[in-house]
Amino acid sequence: MAQLNHETTTGDVLSAYLQGQATEFLRSLRLHRESTTDAQGAEESLEAARALRRAARRIGGTLHTFRPLLDQEWAAGLRPELAWLSGTLAREHAYAARLVRLLDALHRLSGAPAVPAPVTAGAVAGGAVAGGGRNAGRNGWAAPRGADDQGSAPRGLTVGAAKAAALLERQLTLARTRAHSAALQAFGSSRFHAVADNVAVLASEVPLSRAADDLKLLAAGAEEELANAVAALPLGQAGHPYNAEALTHGLAADADAAPEAQDVPWLKTRDLLRLHRYAREVLTGCPGDDPRLADASRALDRHRDAADAASAAASAARTPRIAPATAYALGVLHADQRHEVEAARFAFHQAWLREPEAVSTP
Amino acid sequence: MAQLNHETTTGDVLSAYLQGQATEFLRSLRLHRESTTDAQGAEESLEAARALRRAARRIGGTLHTFRPLLDQEWAAGLRPELAWLSGTLAREHAYAARLVRLLDALHRLSGAPAVPAPVTAGAVAGGAVAGGGRNAGRNGWAAPRGADDQGSAPRGLTVGAAKAAALLERQLTLARTRAHSAALQAFGSSRFHAVADNVAVLASEVPLSRAADDLKLLAAGAEEELANAVAALPLGQAGHPYNAEALTHGLAADADAAPEAQDVPWLKTRDLLRLHRYAREVLTGCPGDDPRLADASRALDRHRDAADAASAAASAARTPRIAPATAYALGVLHADQRHEVEAARFAFHQAWLREPEAVSTP
Repeated sequence: MAQLNHETTTGDVLSAYLQGQATEFLRSLRLHRESTTDAQGAEESLEAARALRRAARRIGGTLHTFRPLLDQEWAAGLRPELAWLSGTLAREHAYAARLVRLLDALHRLSGAPAVPAPVTAGAVAGGAVAGGGRNAGRNGWAAPRGADDQGSAPRGLTVGAAKAAALLERQLTLARTRAHSAALQAFGSSRFHAVADNVAVLASEVPLSRAADDLKLLAAGAEEELANAVAALPLGQAGHPYNAEALTHGLAADADAAPEAQDVPWLKTRDLLRLHRYAREVLTGCPGDDPRLADASRALDRHRDAADAASAAASAARTPRIAPATAYALGVLHADQRHEVEAARFAFHQAWLREPEAVSTP
Repeated sequence: MAQLNHETTTGDVLSAYLQGQATEFLRSLRLHRESTTDAQGAEESLEAARALRRAARRIGGTLHTFRPLLDQEWAAGLRPELAWLSGTLAREHAYAARLVRLLDALHRLSGAPAVPAPVTAGAVAGGAVAGGGRNAGRNGWAAPRGADDQGSAPRGLTVGAAKAAALLERQLTLARTRAHSAALQAFGSSRFHAVADNVAVLASEVPLSRAADDLKLLAAGAEEELANAVAALPLGQAGHPYNAEALTHGLAADADAAPEAQDVPWLKTRDLLRLHRYAREVLTGCPGDDPRLADASRALDRHRDAADAASAAASAARTPRIAPATAYALGVLHADQRHEVEAARFAFHQAWLREPEAVSTP
């Protein structure tokens, strides 16, 4: 369906990028299939799932940013399917990583020896599609596993931290196991096979449109959207250390909604920064990132992870019949993670204000 | 007992300062006596008690720093008595201020409208020797006043914040009332009258020694002690925003000891900064402060206040039979105040690294 004339270069650049990512998608998928049939392949399976999500995000982002250059109907149909796939695959990993983040924080807050690294790594690896739930109970806490009791408030708050850890582990392991089942189901679904077929088409021939839009112009559009989103952020406040903004409303009546409302523009900026980075990759033809953008991106990842972890702690505190010491520890943990959110905003501010590097196009 | 010869200037400068502070002490004491017999004099009583403490601290600090220039036995006897007096007077104010700080924080964390200013001011004023406990229950919270119950965990955490506020108010109002009684008892004691008599002696004639030590040399000694204390602080870490150090060990087994251990060098620095500032006042003969030192001093005051407030929240969380939602709110509050501690260390770092102003001596 692609009939190129004077736009040969534009079409070639876009096609090369999309074909590269589609090939990477198919390679990861093959690796993932091989590793999940192998009982020892947890690590490989994790890596393959990560690479699969990475390629799916890049293809989806490119279909969006450069949509005028592509077959509209085809691109509009594939993009949400790619988002569904990477979202489904991401969930299990997110629950595993959230648990590790919260347990690490509880150890830090308790002055307890840190979780041994191999066990932590194992817990995350175990969470990756290959073996959800297998590492439950191996986080180094000698915590009671039964229902939290209503006894008198313990004097030693470490009891509270241990009980909070056990409660979070139960809840997040359950969520991870469910996400694992959902991911396995997704891989076996006809919906997934349709996505894989579409990506296979992409690997051989990119369905370009006849439009003569400029690649750089479209990339500049993505950059402008990002700039607008950043302009709407309270950056001045974020650049003032210890502004205590992220915890404001942390005890508000609607505990889920209140702190998350202020997170929305930051999460939106994270999405737009990704689109901008992928558009830069299309232009430059190489995956290397501007260090400034990489730092900004890492800060927004940290923002998202800490905000989700803070929500998980608040949500665990609403479990009926928990002991006061458990609730206290979860309160400290929630506040700790909201301060991580604030620290991430500060880090984003620092990265963003650095001098941007010029985009070098081939 | 003072026989001055070639050290006339040194003796004159020291005497002038001590006589000025002694006169201020006696004036404040008179004002305080007048205001406490007047039922409407709460505000005046507060101000008088503050001025009394201020003068007592300065006399005590000066007796310490310039002790070789003074009658040793007399100075060594008076100094702990002044510390006892200002400590006794400070306690009631500290409990009132701590309650206001914690209630303000709970309001901020709940996204509730702030405590109306006049009530807040009244609550503090009411705490000042004149009328401890009178303003209890006027903090704007429609909180349950009875014993915290063991019911099922409330969904809305604002319930937890309100219960935490009520609990803190009960505990800190009780402590304030006790401190008020102790202060009243102190004012009527023979121990207090002996202090007042000694300060009256000081106002008319300062008991100097025959030593020929140099005023500037002794002041430099105080400055050096401060510099050594600051050098022992983890300033590099404090200057790195969001280092999360102040909350480390916040959930440690011995909840009182753990975070307070890291506060000790900061509190010691606060004491030594005061001695340095008072020594500068003696040298310059005027109460005006170097803005840098004033900022550093304010940061260390904030450090002390936030650390004490965090301890009060942790201590309230160990009350038997509190509801989980109350404990959760106290956990968030504890972490919030420990981050205030961290913010205060950052502020001290910023103030301290500014270029110091030269001391101008007359």
